[in-house]
Amino acid sequence: MSTTTSCKTVLASKVSASFRNQIKADIKERNIHPKLVGFLANEDPAAMKYADWTAKTCAETGVDFELRKVSKMDLEEAITEANQDKAVNGIMIYYPVFGGKQDAYLQSCVSKFKDVEGLCHEFVHNVYHNIRFMDEEETMKCIIPCTPLAIVKILEYIGVYNPVIPYGNRLYGRTIAVVNRSEIVGRPLAAMLSNDGAKVYSIDVNGIQLFTRGTGLSLKSHKVEETEATVEQVVPQCDVVITGVPSANYKMPTHLLKEGVVAINFSSLANFQEDIKQKASIFVPSVGKVTVAMLERNLLRLHDYQSK
Amino acid sequence: MSTTTSCKTVLASKVSASFRNQIKADIKERNIHPKLVGFLANEDPAAMKYADWTAKTCAETGVDFELRKVSKMDLEEAITEANQDKAVNGIMIYYPVFGGKQDAYLQSCVSKFKDVEGLCHEFVHNVYHNIRFMDEEETMKCIIPCTPLAIVKILEYIGVYNPVIPYGNRLYGRTIAVVNRSEIVGRPLAAMLSNDGAKVYSIDVNGIQLFTRGTGLSLKSHKVEETEATVEQVVPQCDVVITGVPSANYKMPTHLLKEGVVAINFSSLANFQEDIKQKASIFVPSVGKVTVAMLERNLLRLHDYQSK
Repeated sequence: MSTTTSCKTVLASKVSASFRNQIKADIKERNIHPKLVGFLANEDPAAMKYADWTAKTCAETGVDFELRKVSKMDLEEAITEANQDKAVNGIMIYYPVFGGKQDAYLQSCVSKFKDVEGLCHEFVHNVYHNIRFMDEEETMKCIIPCTPLAIVKILEYIGVYNPVIPYGNRLYGRTIAVVNRSEIVGRPLAAMLSNDGAKVYSIDVNGIQLFTRGTGLSLKSHKVEETEATVEQVVPQCDVVITGVPSANYKMPTHLLKEGVVAINFSSLANFQEDIKQKASIFVPSVGKVTVAMLERNLLRLHDYQSK
Repeated sequence: MSTTTSCKTVLASKVSASFRNQIKADIKERNIHPKLVGFLANEDPAAMKYADWTAKTCAETGVDFELRKVSKMDLEEAITEANQDKAVNGIMIYYPVFGGKQDAYLQSCVSKFKDVEGLCHEFVHNVYHNIRFMDEEETMKCIIPCTPLAIVKILEYIGVYNPVIPYGNRLYGRTIAVVNRSEIVGRPLAAMLSNDGAKVYSIDVNGIQLFTRGTGLSLKSHKVEETEATVEQVVPQCDVVITGVPSANYKMPTHLLKEGVVAINFSSLANFQEDIKQKASIFVPSVGKVTVAMLERNLLRLHDYQSK
């Protein structure tokens, strides 16, 4: 039986530190001044907090961050102007703006050469199809949606990815649950993890889907199947459980979890119960700071693509 | 006071006849065999009915239509294969598949060179920005989302567009309500009508937006403002009221309508009350057959672009 002390809590600030240091050193050494513009068009306190955090991290690392507050009605024109403005290297939007499909529309309005969040259709599509470069010559790596990318980096940091196995298959043998199937985090994350060899149960209110490494020749990507299995059947099999449920009422029942599970929460609300440390070997209570580091990393890439 | 007999009911079959005849003659004369593939991945009886209708119209006009029934989980791979298959000239999907943002994702998975529905991001974006060509040389006109296009064709047929006014401004002076602000019909339709000079009230459960001809130099497109006005204030001002509410409980109150209004319903359910003909000068109870004609028209365009 595990004890409370055997669980290691890993903070996002710890994981992000090496990325932040790398980015800071890179910017200083190359004497570049990458500029990121964030558009805030809502009154959501969580978005405002995220914007403050982006500003703070950017100031520390040497990124020129400008927050532009615009009305919802003016946002699309403001994005179009920033797409065309050579002084702007990266663009991000604090969602939700309108919510629903109109936000999906806005995501694709950001030029792919400035899309630090990696949410335009081409980048999301490339994740599903395991296409890793933007160009045929393979000189420009695709931008990966920043929250799923942050979670992958955390999984690497905490040793879930096994570096002994060849690149592209380092999750082979792992079973992972992702509780969230949004188009911007949960679904691309499930695809990425299965592309890297994991067996992934994607769980949301509409049911459970199983993502596995695909065999389809045309797509070279993961395979997805619907399953009749229940959360009670699936969760106890999982080595890693990743949650992102935007509801204060949702809690993953600790008793379902495997002894020694790796538990990661990317919701802004606590999705695990208070006794999680009695069951988990590693607990990551939030991922936001790693996400901001990934935004900056994507910004540097796009800055370099723009100079080509 | 108008009488029941003074209202002209205009059926979609009547409006679509000239388009169908034109398409049929064009296909026969040029001895071409354009192929349209429709993907059905749901059990929705309305979708099945729409598919039957597409098949029937295609058979009449000489389009080679193939309905492919696939599971939801296999749909994206099937689209990718059809994108790459030179024997396929056009692709359409019977929505909803997953619903929500995942369907928005699927819309953009269809190659723009085969997207007869005009729902990929580039085409929808071009509607909002009043960009009318796919290429800088202006050799390929954009595909326009087919239901909004069908409604424009109906408005032309019934004389709401005024051909005396120069092209691009033929709705100048008209006030139009569009009751639906979906990303695939209501919002692009409001944009198109305002790009053509109308004052458009876009109404949905989240409120009312006013679309007018824009003055923004960078976008050359319509302007959108939120308004505090109510349905009771707005609807009586409208020369044309276009409804698309997918609910059996929704009815536009006849007493709000202007005497002699033009009433058009694109919902599969009746959105006007039974006494609509006592108020309207023209009543168009459905638009589906014109939509299918527009699908075929888009198919012919794409067929020609592919041969370039």
